[in-house]
Amino acid sequence: MTEFKFKLVVAVRRDLDMGKGKIAVQVAHATISVSEEAKRHHPDWWRRWYDEGQCKVAVRVESEDDLHKLHSEAEELGLPSVIIQDRGLTQVTPGTATCLGIGPAPAELVDKVTGNLSLL
Amino acid sequence: MTEFKFKLVVAVRRDLDMGKGKIAVQVAHATISVSEEAKRHHPDWWRRWYDEGQCKVAVRVESEDDLHKLHSEAEELGLPSVIIQDRGLTQVTPGTATCLGIGPAPAELVDKVTGNLSLL
Repeated sequence: MTEFKFKLVVAVRRDLDMGKGKIAVQVAHATISVSEEAKRHHPDWWRRWYDEGQCKVAVRVESEDDLHKLHSEAEELGLPSVIIQDRGLTQVTPGTATCLGIGPAPAELVDKVTGNLSLL
Repeated sequence: MTEFKFKLVVAVRRDLDMGKGKIAVQVAHATISVSEEAKRHHPDWWRRWYDEGQCKVAVRVESEDDLHKLHSEAEELGLPSVIIQDRGLTQVTPGTATCLGIGPAPAELVDKVTGNLSLL
């Protein structure tokens, strides 16, 4: 197993029952948004993550409250973190928080927030 | 339905039977990689897509041949286009082509390549 020093994690709400295409697009949206934020505030983290192979992991949470809790924890640690709200064109109500992106950042910092969550 | 002028499409192989978390991460990888390519070669397209709300669509294909065919068509039209090969740490053999990102680019150009494909 390759050991990555930097990672980006997306936590996805499972309680919304989104289809796999919908989930994929939400995770992509979170990845783009949070990596742009990292690029602005931690360009060194972004660059090392990108060159290392852009480790990305999707994990699951059970509620919108979980997303907000993780978001607060990530911000307390100074990690790039973005909650994605869907436009609601398909499958969910407009403005629904669907997922949360954290990183790219040093893996040991990200793991403090998401290390105990199960893979999606 | 909001009308987007720019879009990014990711075509995902359905024949690999990847799980939804795996698919999400592959689509995110394609989105990051192809949007970085667009940023270098078509920064105007990237900026307009980003400001417009980053329309992303996941569609399905049935084989690796389909990915290569779409890739060629996209390149002939001068569209940013990247095939994602998986490291094969989980679920698939190392080097397996899992998906193809096209864009962000003007929607009518992208539709010439992927307009007849079904949503994932």
